[in-house]
Amino acid sequence: MNKKVTLKSIAKELDVSISTVSKALKDSPEISKDTKQKIKAFAKFYNYKPNNIALSLKNRKTKTLGIIIPEIVHHFFTTVIKGIEQVANDEGYNVIVCLSNNSFDKEVINMEILANGSTDGFIMSVAKETQQKKDYHHLVETINQGMPVVMFDRMIPEINCDKVIIDDKKGARQAVQFLIDKGAKKVALLTTVDYVSVGKLRTTGYLECLESNDLPIDESLILKIEDMDHYAEKIEEFLKQTSCDSIFAVNEHFAVEAIRALRTQGKSVPEDVSVIAFTDGELSKHFIPSLTTINQKGLEMGATAAKLLIDKLERPEDEKELYQTVILETSLIERESTK
Amino acid sequence: MNKKVTLKSIAKELDVSISTVSKALKDSPEISKDTKQKIKAFAKFYNYKPNNIALSLKNRKTKTLGIIIPEIVHHFFTTVIKGIEQVANDEGYNVIVCLSNNSFDKEVINMEILANGSTDGFIMSVAKETQQKKDYHHLVETINQGMPVVMFDRMIPEINCDKVIIDDKKGARQAVQFLIDKGAKKVALLTTVDYVSVGKLRTTGYLECLESNDLPIDESLILKIEDMDHYAEKIEEFLKQTSCDSIFAVNEHFAVEAIRALRTQGKSVPEDVSVIAFTDGELSKHFIPSLTTINQKGLEMGATAAKLLIDKLERPEDEKELYQTVILETSLIERESTK
Repeated sequence: MNKKVTLKSIAKELDVSISTVSKALKDSPEISKDTKQKIKAFAKFYNYKPNNIALSLKNRKTKTLGIIIPEIVHHFFTTVIKGIEQVANDEGYNVIVCLSNNSFDKEVINMEILANGSTDGFIMSVAKETQQKKDYHHLVETINQGMPVVMFDRMIPEINCDKVIIDDKKGARQAVQFLIDKGAKKVALLTTVDYVSVGKLRTTGYLECLESNDLPIDESLILKIEDMDHYAEKIEEFLKQTSCDSIFAVNEHFAVEAIRALRTQGKSVPEDVSVIAFTDGELSKHFIPSLTTINQKGLEMGATAAKLLIDKLERPEDEKELYQTVILETSLIERESTK
Repeated sequence: MNKKVTLKSIAKELDVSISTVSKALKDSPEISKDTKQKIKAFAKFYNYKPNNIALSLKNRKTKTLGIIIPEIVHHFFTTVIKGIEQVANDEGYNVIVCLSNNSFDKEVINMEILANGSTDGFIMSVAKETQQKKDYHHLVETINQGMPVVMFDRMIPEINCDKVIIDDKKGARQAVQFLIDKGAKKVALLTTVDYVSVGKLRTTGYLECLESNDLPIDESLILKIEDMDHYAEKIEEFLKQTSCDSIFAVNEHFAVEAIRALRTQGKSVPEDVSVIAFTDGELSKHFIPSLTTINQKGLEMGATAAKLLIDKLERPEDEKELYQTVILETSLIERESTK
């Protein structure tokens, strides 16, 4: 069997992290000279080809866009891909998708594979672990090598590149204000942990809206969920101990589980508790009661990201460093889950 | 701007189909000598590189699996990808996904791109249009060039390769028998057009089950849906004109729209009409009433396909031509939508 040497196999062999190998091969000052020498020698011996092949291929267009997303069984991300595909097809580009599974190492490996002459540039939403680690060397290096990157949804403010986001903070304020306008006094928040940028922004929007309406901030009304495997149980447990008149959930799955949990407590939605969620998923439309939502604009986000990337690819060399952040306006879709 | 010559641009330039260009470059006897010469000359002049690059790279392993699926905003396909990813990760392989959007041309182009040194083999579910056209040259050529292909779900019986399917016919019989056992006499069928292989098999299973129970086959109880854009209206219209005591739907979207349509007619599920669907989607679990379903085994299908492909890639050369078809057993999950 022919074995290909990869970042992963070098890391394993030398008992260092993938990130260290990747940085060493790119001659990063963060890595000691000794370590760099060892890694480079090893890579050379096994004929490892780092992705600066991309550099030499800079003038060869593949007409292919690389997408890296954290999850695939996720309606929002697949909708974004659909939006990207539509624009890419119209403009004569193909699309290749890779998944990071929210793992930093997989994200680094995916970029390495796709930058290796398969694609002209990237559209990506970063892995949870990357946001947590704050290690962005793979992104910086890829951009420095001349491959444009467009980030959407979960982006990194410090990185210089094109970005497409929705105004998560404003969307959250919009949701909570809607509940307050309908008479809510005790709004519970079902959110993710803070290192997920969109979760944090939506949490901030919630807090700001309570403050601007002179409502007290009650920590016991806030549930931050880390582990997506057992969120249903956590929401059920939380709602047993919490008395609220309405709920703002940062995604539709949290909202649906909240409705289910309330029902087992003998409470109805929206009669006893109103529920509103961030999403443009399938469940919201079909669930009974259908969910009032803040629309995440997945299709539009994908289409905008593809336009930004193609525009950058087809622009003359000296204009490539003008970056923009497009902020899409969220909209509130009123359905049956709120009074 | 540097323009890359693609199958598509050659086809456009010479005003022939992508399939003709692809066949001509592979020296297919189906294409006239004149046309072949013209296409080859053009391709050579513009330095087009056909995918038999893959041939020369036969001994270079990329450790990457290529997946081609017809649709991405589709819970079943994303679940299959998740299943593939899990096995691929465990075995040290990466995964790249491309979409055909159910277009034959896009499927041909995707295979061309991925076979071009990016992947070691394919896992795919073919486009509706490919099944309709019955043009499989791209699949045959890829396999002949030594790139293994594993087909799942929508597969082509005539092609010699590994396959993973569920027993659609048996699953359909299982669903209809379940309804009949609960007392159904008039079972309506909501299905797709016949050229979609799984739709056809499920339709056959439905017909066989009625026959074996001595129930009459009533064409007015069968709705075949082609255009997925307006299926809700079609189902509503159909159910207005049809009187049935139960419904078998080949996917959960048809089932959910049927329940909605029945409700507007003042009928309850399962009290007035029982509903059962093929799926392992999200809606089935969360919808109220939750749906009784025939499980499509998406995760298992993906995992099995990945195992078959990796096994083939790592097998000695002389054993590569032993193909197998794995048939996964469906199971019936009883929930609230049936009596």
